[in-house]
Amino acid sequence: MLVTEIIAKKRDKLEHSYEELKWFIDAYVDGSIPDYQVSAWLMAVVLNGMSFEETARLTQVMIESGKTYNLQHLTDRPLVDKHSTGGVGDKISLPLAPIAAAMGLYVPMMSGRALGITGGTLDKLESIPGYRTQLKDYEFIQYIEENGYAMTGQTQDIVPADRLLYALRDVTACVESIPLITASILSKKFAEGAQSFVFDVKWGTGAFMKSATDAEKLAESLTKTMQRLGRRSVALITNMNEPLGLKMGNFLEMEESYLCLEGKGPQDVMILVERQACYMALAGGIVKNMEEAKELYHQVVASGKAKDRFLKNIEQQGGSVKEFEAMLGVYRSEHYQDIIATTTGYIQHIDAGVVGRAGLNLGVGRATKQDTVSPVAGVEFYKKSGDKVSEGEVIARAYAGSITGLKLAMPILEGAFSFSNEKVVKQSMIQKELIVL
Amino acid sequence: MLVTEIIAKKRDKLEHSYEELKWFIDAYVDGSIPDYQVSAWLMAVVLNGMSFEETARLTQVMIESGKTYNLQHLTDRPLVDKHSTGGVGDKISLPLAPIAAAMGLYVPMMSGRALGITGGTLDKLESIPGYRTQLKDYEFIQYIEENGYAMTGQTQDIVPADRLLYALRDVTACVESIPLITASILSKKFAEGAQSFVFDVKWGTGAFMKSATDAEKLAESLTKTMQRLGRRSVALITNMNEPLGLKMGNFLEMEESYLCLEGKGPQDVMILVERQACYMALAGGIVKNMEEAKELYHQVVASGKAKDRFLKNIEQQGGSVKEFEAMLGVYRSEHYQDIIATTTGYIQHIDAGVVGRAGLNLGVGRATKQDTVSPVAGVEFYKKSGDKVSEGEVIARAYAGSITGLKLAMPILEGAFSFSNEKVVKQSMIQKELIVL
Repeated sequence: MLVTEIIAKKRDKLEHSYEELKWFIDAYVDGSIPDYQVSAWLMAVVLNGMSFEETARLTQVMIESGKTYNLQHLTDRPLVDKHSTGGVGDKISLPLAPIAAAMGLYVPMMSGRALGITGGTLDKLESIPGYRTQLKDYEFIQYIEENGYAMTGQTQDIVPADRLLYALRDVTACVESIPLITASILSKKFAEGAQSFVFDVKWGTGAFMKSATDAEKLAESLTKTMQRLGRRSVALITNMNEPLGLKMGNFLEMEESYLCLEGKGPQDVMILVERQACYMALAGGIVKNMEEAKELYHQVVASGKAKDRFLKNIEQQGGSVKEFEAMLGVYRSEHYQDIIATTTGYIQHIDAGVVGRAGLNLGVGRATKQDTVSPVAGVEFYKKSGDKVSEGEVIARAYAGSITGLKLAMPILEGAFSFSNEKVVKQSMIQKELIVL
Repeated sequence: MLVTEIIAKKRDKLEHSYEELKWFIDAYVDGSIPDYQVSAWLMAVVLNGMSFEETARLTQVMIESGKTYNLQHLTDRPLVDKHSTGGVGDKISLPLAPIAAAMGLYVPMMSGRALGITGGTLDKLESIPGYRTQLKDYEFIQYIEENGYAMTGQTQDIVPADRLLYALRDVTACVESIPLITASILSKKFAEGAQSFVFDVKWGTGAFMKSATDAEKLAESLTKTMQRLGRRSVALITNMNEPLGLKMGNFLEMEESYLCLEGKGPQDVMILVERQACYMALAGGIVKNMEEAKELYHQVVASGKAKDRFLKNIEQQGGSVKEFEAMLGVYRSEHYQDIIATTTGYIQHIDAGVVGRAGLNLGVGRATKQDTVSPVAGVEFYKKSGDKVSEGEVIARAYAGSITGLKLAMPILEGAFSFSNEKVVKQSMIQKELIVL
C-alpha cells in the first residue's frame, strides 16, 4: 500500500476499507508515516467526510492501536457508561455514576480534565483532599466490582492513535470534523470496557458545538457508528446556553452533585441526571421500559443507596467522607465578590460561554494544558433565567483562586447576565433524543 | 498571525490576503512552520481551490521567496518565453527558441529534466557532447544578449518556496491542483526574467492532464492569473494523445529540431512551432497581427537565420557544431528492434502514454529522479496515425540504452499501435487558444 494512494482516495471522496485504515493508522502510531502525510489526510477527512461505516472502521483500528480494559469477567451486571461533549457547570457524571451503579449497572468511567471553557470531571473530583484520579488497572476493576463504578483518567496506553491524531488535529485546524470527533470519543469509550453508552451532546455558547444542528449531526454520527459496531446507545441533544445548575467550579460542583444524590439538586441538573440514568438502565437491559427505569431511579435516590455509593467511592479512591462532609457549604475561596441585579424585573439569560471565559480567570478551568486550577474557585448562582429579581439584589457570588483573577473575571462575568422587564420563557433542556437500542 | 487560523481560512473556503500568504510562505521557507501544518493547508487548497486573484498573490510571494534574474537592462527587445506542461516527443522548445530569437525577441529559457513519461529539454540538449545546461548567471545573460536566447536549468536559489512546496505536494497527494500548478509554473517563469509567455497546455494519454477539460481549466488559470499579475499571455490547449513528431528520444529529438529549422520538420511539430512563435512575437509586441507574425516566421526559417542561432547556441554552451552535424542520422544505439505492421490497412492510433512508458525501459526518461538517461535511446516512427501500411512493413524502430531495456520495452511499445481497415481521421493538434494580450 502507498501512503499517497490512501491520501488520494480520501481526497477523491472514496471510502476507506478496514485494511487500509488499519495499515495507515498502525504505521502512523509506530512512526513509519510522518505527520505531514497524516495531516494532509486529516484535512481531506475534514472536507470530504466519512460514511458511518467508515467511521466505525476508523474507530475499530483506533481501539486496536492500544490497550483495552478487559472487564469481561464482570458478567453479573451490564457495563454501561455515559459521555458528555462537555459544558459549563456540567457535573452530570458525578451524581449519575453512583445512581446508575445503585440501579444495577457497572459503570467504568474514564474522564478528562478542564480545557478552555469546559470543566473537567477529574479536576472536580480532585477538589476532595486525597482523592486519586489515576487508578492502577487492578484498582479500577476492583472498585467497579465492589461499588458498581469507579472514576479514573485516561492513561497513555489507552488509544495511542487518538492521542497522536488529536495532537496533530489541534495544530492543523482539523479538530472540527464529525467523523474524527466520533472516532475519538468512541475509541476511548470502548477501550475503557463499557458495552453500551448514553451520549450527552451539548450545543450552545457554553459547548463545543455552537448550534443544535451541529450537535444533532454529531449525535447521529455517534449513534449510527455505534450501531455499525453492533452496540446500543442513546444520544441526547441538550441545551448548553446557560450554565448547568446553581454551582459552577470544582468543589462547588462536588457539592451540588451531593445535593442531587440527596434529591435536592436544581431542576435542570436533575432532569438530565434522571433521563441519562434511565437510558443507561434501558441500554443495559435491566429494565423493560422507561416507566420501570424511572421507578428504579427514584427508588435508589430516595433510599440513599446512590448517595452511599458516592461516599464509598470517595473512601475507595483516597478521600475522607468525614472531611468531605465537613467541607460542604464552607470550603470557599477568601477572594469573592457578589453580582448585583442592575434592574428590577426578570433575568433574561446567563450566557454560559461568557461564564466559562470568566471561569478561566477565576481559576476554574485552563486556558492551556499547563495551567493549574483552583479547587475553591467558581460561581454560585442564587437566581437563574426566568427568576424575578429586584434592583440591588445579590444574584450570584464569584470565588477566585487569586485576587488578580477575581479582578479580571468580574467585568466578564457581569456581562454574562441580561435582564428583562417581561416574563421570560426558559429554553427546554433536552432538544431531541436519538435512540438505537 | 496564527498558523491554524490561516489553515482554517482555507478549510472554510475563504480567500487569503497577500499579507497572509507572504507571512505563511516566508515562515515555511525559513523553517518556522513545520511540514505537517503546510500539508494540511495544501490539501485544503486542493479541495477548496483558490480564486485567480489569490493564485496571483501566491505566485507573487513564491517569486519573492528567492532570487530572480534581472534582465531589465536588456531593453532593446521584448523578453518572451514559452512553457509546455510536457509530453511524449515534445521538443517544441528546441526549434522554437532560436526561431523566436531570430524573429527579434529575447528568450530566457529555463527548462527541466525528464520525469515519468515526460521528456526533458535539458536531457535532450545534453545528448550533444560537451553541451552545458547549468549556466552561471552571467553566462545565461551574456548568451541571451549575444544570440537572443539561452537554455539553462533551474538553480536551487530560484523560487525555493516552489522547491519545498512541490516536494511536500508530491508525498501528500497534493500535486493535482490547478491553482498550485499555476503558481508553481508562473513563479518559476517569472523568476527567469521573462515578461510575457506562451503556454502549451497539453492533454491526453501522454500528458499530465488526461482530459481536454482539465487542460482548459489550467490554461484559463494560467492566463487569468497572468492577467491579474499585469502580464500578457497566450495559452494553447493541444493534443498529446499521439507522440509528437517522428522522433522520440534525447538525441533523436535534437535531430528532429534541426530538421524543423531547415523547414523539414514533421507537420504536427511545425504547426505547434509556428503557432507558438507567432504568439510569442505578438505577445512581445514586435508584430501587429498574426499575418505579420507568420510572414516574419517564414522569413527567419527559410533564410536559415533561425538555424544559425541554434548552431551558435550549441557552440556558446560548450558543444561543437562540427561534431553535432557529424552525428546526424548516425548517432544511434546498437541495441535496436523494428516494429512491424501486423495487418494491411491504416494506423489508427499510436498511444503516447504507452510509448512514454516504453521509453522508461528504453532509457529515454526517468522513473525516479535518481535514474540516468541514455542519449541514444528512443523511437523513430516511419508511419503515424492515418498512414497506409502493409502487413510486415517496418513502421518504427526502437533504440535502447541496454539490451535488457530493449527486451522490457518491446512488448509495451508494440501495444501502443492500433490498426484499422478504414481510413482514419487524424485528431487536430490545437483544440483551443486562450489569448490575454
